[in-house]
Amino acid sequence: MVKVGVLAASGYIGGELLRLLLQHPEVEITIATSRKYAGEYVFRVHPNLRGVTELKFSANDASKVMADSEVVFAALPHGESVKIVPQIADAGLKVVDLSADFRLSDKGQYPTWYGYDHPRPDLLEKFVYSIPEINRDQVKGARLVSSPGCTAITATLALAPLLKEKSLGIDRDHVVVDAKVGSSGAGGKPSLYTHFSERFGVVRPYKPAGHRHAAEIEQVLAEMAGESVKVSMSAHAVNMVRGILVTSHVFIAAGVKPLDVWKAYRSMYTGSYFVRLVRDKQGPFRLPDPKLVVGSNFCDVGFELEERTGRLVALSATDNLVKGAAGNAIQSMNLMLGFDEKTGLTSAPLHPV
Amino acid sequence: MVKVGVLAASGYIGGELLRLLLQHPEVEITIATSRKYAGEYVFRVHPNLRGVTELKFSANDASKVMADSEVVFAALPHGESVKIVPQIADAGLKVVDLSADFRLSDKGQYPTWYGYDHPRPDLLEKFVYSIPEINRDQVKGARLVSSPGCTAITATLALAPLLKEKSLGIDRDHVVVDAKVGSSGAGGKPSLYTHFSERFGVVRPYKPAGHRHAAEIEQVLAEMAGESVKVSMSAHAVNMVRGILVTSHVFIAAGVKPLDVWKAYRSMYTGSYFVRLVRDKQGPFRLPDPKLVVGSNFCDVGFELEERTGRLVALSATDNLVKGAAGNAIQSMNLMLGFDEKTGLTSAPLHPV
Amino acid sequence: MVKVGVLAASGYIGGELLRLLLQHPEVEITIATSRKYAGEYVFRVHPNLRGVTELKFSANDASKVMADSEVVFAALPHGESVKIVPQIADAGLKVVDLSADFRLSDKGQYPTWYGYDHPRPDLLEKFVYSIPEINRDQVKGARLVSSPGCTAITATLALAPLLKEKSLGIDRDHVVVDAKVGSSGAGGKPSLYTHFSERFGVVRPYKPAGHRHAAEIEQVLAEMAGESVKVSMSAHAVNMVRGILVTSHVFIAAGVKPLDVWKAYRSMYTGSYFVRLVRDKQGPFRLPDPKLVVGSNFCDVGFELEERTGRLVALSATDNLVKGAAGNAIQSMNLMLGFDEKTGLTSAPLHPV
Amino acid sequence: MVKVGVLAASGYIGGELLRLLLQHPEVEITIATSRKYAGEYVFRVHPNLRGVTELKFSANDASKVMADSEVVFAALPHGESVKIVPQIADAGLKVVDLSADFRLSDKGQYPTWYGYDHPRPDLLEKFVYSIPEINRDQVKGARLVSSPGCTAITATLALAPLLKEKSLGIDRDHVVVDAKVGSSGAGGKPSLYTHFSERFGVVRPYKPAGHRHAAEIEQVLAEMAGESVKVSMSAHAVNMVRGILVTSHVFIAAGVKPLDVWKAYRSMYTGSYFVRLVRDKQGPFRLPDPKLVVGSNFCDVGFELEERTGRLVALSATDNLVKGAAGNAIQSMNLMLGFDEKTGLTSAPLHPV
Repeated sequence: MVKVGVLAASGYIGGELLRLLLQHPEVEITIATSRKYAGEYVFRVHPNLRGVTELKFSANDASKVMADSEVVFAALPHGESVKIVPQIADAGLKVVDLSADFRLSDKGQYPTWYGYDHPRPDLLEKFVYSIPEINRDQVKGARLVSSPGCTAITATLALAPLLKEKSLGIDRDHVVVDAKVGSSGAGGKPSLYTHFSERFGVVRPYKPAGHRHAAEIEQVLAEMAGESVKVSMSAHAVNMVRGILVTSHVFIAAGVKPLDVWKAYRSMYTGSYFVRLVRDKQGPFRLPDPKLVVGSNFCDVGFELEERTGRLVALSATDNLVKGAAGNAIQSMNLMLGFDEKTGLTSAPLHPV
Repeated sequence: MVKVGVLAASGYIGGELLRLLLQHPEVEITIATSRKYAGEYVFRVHPNLRGVTELKFSANDASKVMADSEVVFAALPHGESVKIVPQIADAGLKVVDLSADFRLSDKGQYPTWYGYDHPRPDLLEKFVYSIPEINRDQVKGARLVSSPGCTAITATLALAPLLKEKSLGIDRDHVVVDAKVGSSGAGGKPSLYTHFSERFGVVRPYKPAGHRHAAEIEQVLAEMAGESVKVSMSAHAVNMVRGILVTSHVFIAAGVKPLDVWKAYRSMYTGSYFVRLVRDKQGPFRLPDPKLVVGSNFCDVGFELEERTGRLVALSATDNLVKGAAGNAIQSMNLMLGFDEKTGLTSAPLHPV
Repeated sequence: MVKVGVLAASGYIGGELLRLLLQHPEVEITIATSRKYAGEYVFRVHPNLRGVTELKFSANDASKVMADSEVVFAALPHGESVKIVPQIADAGLKVVDLSADFRLSDKGQYPTWYGYDHPRPDLLEKFVYSIPEINRDQVKGARLVSSPGCTAITATLALAPLLKEKSLGIDRDHVVVDAKVGSSGAGGKPSLYTHFSERFGVVRPYKPAGHRHAAEIEQVLAEMAGESVKVSMSAHAVNMVRGILVTSHVFIAAGVKPLDVWKAYRSMYTGSYFVRLVRDKQGPFRLPDPKLVVGSNFCDVGFELEERTGRLVALSATDNLVKGAAGNAIQSMNLMLGFDEKTGLTSAPLHPV
Repeated sequence: MVKVGVLAASGYIGGELLRLLLQHPEVEITIATSRKYAGEYVFRVHPNLRGVTELKFSANDASKVMADSEVVFAALPHGESVKIVPQIADAGLKVVDLSADFRLSDKGQYPTWYGYDHPRPDLLEKFVYSIPEINRDQVKGARLVSSPGCTAITATLALAPLLKEKSLGIDRDHVVVDAKVGSSGAGGKPSLYTHFSERFGVVRPYKPAGHRHAAEIEQVLAEMAGESVKVSMSAHAVNMVRGILVTSHVFIAAGVKPLDVWKAYRSMYTGSYFVRLVRDKQGPFRLPDPKLVVGSNFCDVGFELEERTGRLVALSATDNLVKGAAGNAIQSMNLMLGFDEKTGLTSAPLHPV
């Protein structure tokens, strides 16, 4: 059993890491930290885990984490991770970081998007931004991995094959990414914004412009395209807890046929268990819908072509806490440790739910 | 009291017409028809109206409707309205049609979008497509009015001022309209698509391409711009019953400032009670959200600019059954009859709900 | 126009009072107070009222309220109302208090249920506990009125006729009141309990025993029965914002027939517009459901008999912010001022919503 | 690997059996039948299983099922199961029946509760009604097992220990069971009752009296008490898909203390992994809530005492499709086959969801 530590395990992503790691047959959680809840039973904070684990939270002490773990998951907020993770990385442990602090390879992007100068630009080169379905081999060889933002990975899985396939002729200046996101993506801290009576039933455009995940998406898409890509992203809070649907509107070359799009997706995702291509002719779920991935590590991807406007609508859905966060992180760990990437992640989605 | 008839009053839009007309101080409902429920109490079909009215449904008999009414609202499905409404129109009554059958002024569009040849193209010229905030004067003088589709009016109210104001330099080839719609827009007929266990919690891209309302929107926007406009529209079913949020992504000239956008909106909507411009700096509702218009005839409009991508994100929200249908129809009737356009429509939105 | 003041108008009940009073044809709101938001536009706190009113909050200053108003609504928390309302009552103004501070006529109940000694027991005799459908005549003559708690009025409207009708033989020791309540009843203050991700989808037994509204219900039922009644009450938070369903399980004499129960309800409620008796043989809404009263002042009441267990299940539904609070208060004011009790309260419920 | 067949696998319970059995390490699904979907891929009907299984539905052919399976799960409607299951039972296979057709041991109950004369009363004696936490040893030795109704097992797990413990003095004539149930319990067939716009946001008393599960509950409780017990049951549809909360109101002897109740629960459930006793002093989840068991086989049980009314409120929550149906059935199979009862059922609940 590989010893695994989880830094900042009291948030929703931390809780999901614990839930999934507790079911993982090859690892054991040796330490889970929380500044606020140190000494408290994990199930007091994550009440779903009552009866499942007797683990208690430890203090956020990096040296203790390093002493107890071979692999460390860091679920700290951006700006915090960069203060703690470098010493763990320097000590030679394996790290999967879930914050934004090691996602952008260009240090110049940090002041722009996150408002700080990156103190350890050397680490930016060492961390692999991990979407296994896109760069599996890199992840396999990595010791330091950065796991994407939840809307970023969802959008990127729909868009990367399109940008990679030159013959589709994607217009790189008008890539519109319209995301619909469940409340759990906003974390567990109460506020008027998340007060049930104010939040129930909304379609709230909470980040119509300037969404930080655009930076990550552009980074991957530029790599795919070999040229820069401009991502126009907007995010909306909708009336659910788990799940993301990303609707990506892109403009394509005349004459592109559905089969061409299929080919682009298949050539990238054949053999990737966690990406399901969805495009049915009947039934209520003809295209991706976050309802159908709840609790699972799947990302469903589908599309529709609109000839009249020269538009390709790419759709992608994830459970934001699983493939959008903890699941992708564990899948990355599996690859880093030489396990089958599906290990511990094969729970099928719940339906109906 | 003006005598008003409602054709096809058993659907959700019909029910909303009845609810609002029953509260209208200047009209009385003299007849409400339903093919299926003729002879049945209205409150058996619209149980919210129990205790509110003792009205019964009549058969869908045009001659009876004409005998009893001065104004007729027709809430028939498209393709059905065109079979019944012409005789009422020819007889000289005032008509507000809520179907698509008289919305498009170019008869050539009907085969393309609705799959039939229009039998009465002469009427297409006579019907005024009514969005009072855009063409109030035309509506005032009209006898025959066509009320827009729910997502169409919501999108158009956000986009029309932008296309009209040339200095904004809207790119007319890349107008993306991403709509999030409540279930009531799909009507009252049960199916697997609308089965609660299958429909709850979805973000379902039900019409990612080819949405018919694009035709109406393009018609109005072209009129505003004086040139053709291509609307790239996608619609999603979300986890609520009432309400629409439309996110319109458009690309603008370099150098456009928020104030320029404000001016475009203000110059069109000053004096229009039912359009509220929303752009707050704090609180959970800084931009339009359908939660805040439930039960009212308001359309909330707001926007955000993203300089980096040259994008203007316009947001608009309505209650799809009120401003998106029955409310706009009654507002139109008010104008046609010379009443204050707000008459009977001033119920404030519910909050929280 | 009667001048009306609203004390503590920034909460959900305060907001609902403002919404309804703004639509009331016979009154004008002269002052609305808020300790926290004094000086702020009302629509910043109640964003549904944007465009509806330009009113600003005033400080919670009793003397100013008294100077400006003829009738005062007090929507203060219990324990706070009793500090401010007495001076307004002593000054001779008309008062409708929505807190618990003047609901119980026996001062000895306050330490038990609310944890304080009542400082003005003389006022307890002067305040009329108002459920117009039960004690309309008393309310008509009253200057000081106390409006019930939301679950209390909902339960009481279903139970009072049953206890009054002796021939039903209600077992007064086993009256079980099981309430299902929307989130708005818990007010507008964020906490972990009301954090959307934690609150969505719950059926949370938040007050399974010791619910304070039992005291009010017992008070009225004892009056109806002429003997003491023991109310066993439990309340649950469910996945909606507005609405209450109360399921009252009572045990009856052998041989009681549905018609007997009907008679008991009819003899109390004939002529009461706001109580609708609901017991249909078909359709999805055969019995009361809070979904069907949203936005209205209706209380729907229905029942089912179970011979095998000698049980009568009485069901009642309200919109907790309307008939459960602001609507009942305004209905009471209408009676106090000699208006028709329906004035300003006839908005039909929304459906579907 | 044990060969397992699933009869009537296209419904929600059937789908949940498939989902869980596909993850079970000791069994393989050899056949899954559906009258309507024979020949169709399972994932077309249960779209969550896309990518998880390539299984297709077979016709509902008992002989084929018998040829292919060692254990048969029957998820047929009541009245249908009794036509097919007997021949499978007679052939010597192991059977877990999820219908009501073999739940009641007294054949005389079938005409009363289900409206038919039982054709095979001999089988009623052979089938073991299985709630492993109550009669584990019986289930271990059984070849034929009947799995309880979803509200029945949820209520019974809260009530059985109370009736068994004589010193609590439960009043057997006034046992009120008030259930709040998600939509999936009503199955997958669309109707106006389950149409999203009509079903969203309800608290609908769909079976206030005469609920058939009362018969099962009474059967077990009578066994516990050694005397007959009268169960007064009402069920309500609430705004969620998965989950049941049962609130049981019972009346107890004077002087009973919380510790006494604890003891009753502990003495029955110590060592039973799937029953979690929940009674916390803080946090949003102090008592059972269906939100906290979603996707899991847990039944959470808790209680509150109300001295004033001599009442004990027992609360229990399950995921109706798991512990309320498929999970309990598989747990029973585990015992029948000599596996650890938790095998394949240890997925932790999702939270938040």
